[in-house]
Amino acid sequence: MKNLLEHVEAAIRERKLFRRGERILVAVSGGVDSMVLLRALVALARGQDWKLTVAHFNHQLRGRASDGDELFVKRAATALGLRCLTERGAVKSIAKERGISIEMAARELRHKFLADAARQTGSRMIALAHHADDQVELFFLRLFRGAGGEGMAGMKWSNVSPANSNIKLVRPLLDVSKIEIEQAAREAKIKFRTDASNACRDILRNRIRHDLLPQLRRGFQPALDKAVLRVMDLVGEESEAVAALARQWLRARKPGAFARLSVAVQRRVIQLQLREGKLPEEFDGVEFLRCFPNREFNLDVARSVARDAAGRLHFRWLTKAGFKSGLKKIWLRAESGAAEFGGVKLNWRITKRVARGKIARQPGRELFEADRVGRKITLRHWQPGDRFQPIGMTRAVKLQDLFVNLKIPKARRHELVVAVAEGGEIFWVEGTRIGEAFKLTGATRRALIWRWWR
Amino acid sequence: MKNLLEHVEAAIRERKLFRRGERILVAVSGGVDSMVLLRALVALARGQDWKLTVAHFNHQLRGRASDGDELFVKRAATALGLRCLTERGAVKSIAKERGISIEMAARELRHKFLADAARQTGSRMIALAHHADDQVELFFLRLFRGAGGEGMAGMKWSNVSPANSNIKLVRPLLDVSKIEIEQAAREAKIKFRTDASNACRDILRNRIRHDLLPQLRRGFQPALDKAVLRVMDLVGEESEAVAALARQWLRARKPGAFARLSVAVQRRVIQLQLREGKLPEEFDGVEFLRCFPNREFNLDVARSVARDAAGRLHFRWLTKAGFKSGLKKIWLRAESGAAEFGGVKLNWRITKRVARGKIARQPGRELFEADRVGRKITLRHWQPGDRFQPIGMTRAVKLQDLFVNLKIPKARRHELVVAVAEGGEIFWVEGTRIGEAFKLTGATRRALIWRWWR
Repeated sequence: MKNLLEHVEAAIRERKLFRRGERILVAVSGGVDSMVLLRALVALARGQDWKLTVAHFNHQLRGRASDGDELFVKRAATALGLRCLTERGAVKSIAKERGISIEMAARELRHKFLADAARQTGSRMIALAHHADDQVELFFLRLFRGAGGEGMAGMKWSNVSPANSNIKLVRPLLDVSKIEIEQAAREAKIKFRTDASNACRDILRNRIRHDLLPQLRRGFQPALDKAVLRVMDLVGEESEAVAALARQWLRARKPGAFARLSVAVQRRVIQLQLREGKLPEEFDGVEFLRCFPNREFNLDVARSVARDAAGRLHFRWLTKAGFKSGLKKIWLRAESGAAEFGGVKLNWRITKRVARGKIARQPGRELFEADRVGRKITLRHWQPGDRFQPIGMTRAVKLQDLFVNLKIPKARRHELVVAVAEGGEIFWVEGTRIGEAFKLTGATRRALIWRWWR
Repeated sequence: MKNLLEHVEAAIRERKLFRRGERILVAVSGGVDSMVLLRALVALARGQDWKLTVAHFNHQLRGRASDGDELFVKRAATALGLRCLTERGAVKSIAKERGISIEMAARELRHKFLADAARQTGSRMIALAHHADDQVELFFLRLFRGAGGEGMAGMKWSNVSPANSNIKLVRPLLDVSKIEIEQAAREAKIKFRTDASNACRDILRNRIRHDLLPQLRRGFQPALDKAVLRVMDLVGEESEAVAALARQWLRARKPGAFARLSVAVQRRVIQLQLREGKLPEEFDGVEFLRCFPNREFNLDVARSVARDAAGRLHFRWLTKAGFKSGLKKIWLRAESGAAEFGGVKLNWRITKRVARGKIARQPGRELFEADRVGRKITLRHWQPGDRFQPIGMTRAVKLQDLFVNLKIPKARRHELVVAVAEGGEIFWVEGTRIGEAFKLTGATRRALIWRWWR
């Protein structure tokens, strides 16, 4: 454990992962990785004046075993004198309802819970227990998917939470091997839970972990992990250099000709614009847009995109009978501003925290947590597949169903304006309640005040 | 075969691999890949007015089977009405003599033979039969070595011969799969030889081909080849974009600060300078030089290198008792010039082809094939491990042994000046004969005339 502590302390210091006095939310599943991470951070916290909170998301995918994990983590946190936040997610039913995989639903709900828990405890940082073996597995997962350099580079030491761009995910164990983690657990007698589903060969990652990697180490390269991690580092830095060129080009007032960029930078310029628009970044689409200017590529049933000769992407809603296209992007970079879209006029203002409850509800005025909404928002009309979680509801529903419940006439539904947060979620639907995830809480630092009228 | 012909013709046209009327040397081992390549090029040659010559290198590694391959290729060439050049290499003994692997010796001798055969037939292009399956195997070979983006990208459609920078290696089958090649062979009833050593599991590449890849396709990704080739393409283009930045930086009159370059460009700037100096480009060395300015890194027993704060590398011969350091680089970019090093004065001149035999030997004057010598040459003293192949000898010998044979006094040996060609080979040792590989031949287009005195 001493070796691991010294190593982790050095990594945190050299990479500036946490500051002195940082509030850190530690994501703990109860497995050996996160239990060792928790104990390591507790051991280092005193010297660094960190304030730790434990968070556990119960995916409810393994029945009593899941509940056992939750209880175990709660007790471990109590024994360490730490607060523990938990949540139970209905992963299966949400995956089914939304037609996405269990893994994707689990990931989304977990990140949302962690980001909300971080916000609630005033933490800007979420510590995750990903380690070097996870990276090597990820390399092969992404190789089998045919990923680009960015994907092949694997996870970063620190990146923005997909659920909230004000919160960072930090991975202090990223260059520590599983063997070192297990050794530390033995030395420090750290108890942990074993997830039986980790042995299940139906999951591709488990087959890579238990079948492929041991075989490669045995038959092809004993130092496999070192070699793969080096490839990830080298390829990742090259990819990052290309991304920097692409960002620079996109920001430039007078960028050079798109056609004269290198193939890699052209690809990245297109990919970054797709990402900005929360659109799928698939290889075929990127290559189509790169090679054929002014030709439309259908991203999905609802949207198409084309690249102009100058390299800029133009998105278009494929009009389904009745649905209205068009959108307005607003950048909330000043303290206040005004906008207009689809007949709705809007004045907005960002203020320091507002005492809750003191402000009476007024028609035509809403308050949102500004940091959750983000800086870049979009005004548009209802589109097929839109979902929204009004305040007080436990999950997002289809806008379609909401309109039916609220008895809004069909013709009117297509005239209403909706507002989309930087993270891609709808936070406001004209004339209904605000989004649950965007309400003011005790941890709110800044409020977005939103006045609108027609 | 028709599908393959159309595909190969399109690849050659779109990638501008060969021009009309091109003289092409086709490297043929006798295996299915090169026999199909040969037949495809023969079929396309008439329309393109290509002049084909067959070349076969007998590695003499498989006894009578090797001789059988040679005979088979000769007969196949005759049947197609093509000239066939062959050579027998003493791969094993040269590997042993020079302390390098059989594979490395085979590769070096083969490339040297092919480049010389191309030169002899006036071909600027050597066609090789590498295909898509070779690329996928190479990906895993390089992954196990921990290569960077350039290495992970695999082979290029066209690159310079390692044995002669005036000759290109071209791979018209690079995106054709082995299955497609075998199908073409069946359809067109193309005969070929089977190399029994391809099944030998002692060779890492064969284990990848016969054990690993089938298992990955079966258990992890049926479309493995497509995914891996896409990763190679994406990663390769990013790596090429970084290399372009590094070359631009190295060429700039006033380059920006080294410290402000991205990590990837810093690495490439160092790597390109090592390559320029024909020095090992290993990861540890590159990282050391990148991170620590003005500190010496020992490349091998004879040489060290350090990076200055501006990003330039400085090489130094580690002085072994008696050996003299120092060197002078000469760029033969004009038609003539003069230089001086170690007491030797030198006038050089490049002329159009000189009629052989018409020029009597004169002391203090030598003639070399200018294209073989290259543009950037180095004058220096004898260094430990130096090898040289004087004209008329069948292989390179240690300079040490040559000096003993020529009865040159020990003290004098360290005063002599040697000249190193762009490719890294010694082409002249003061006072002895010229290098075998650099003599004028019937195919010589330009001669380097070299007058020297003390």
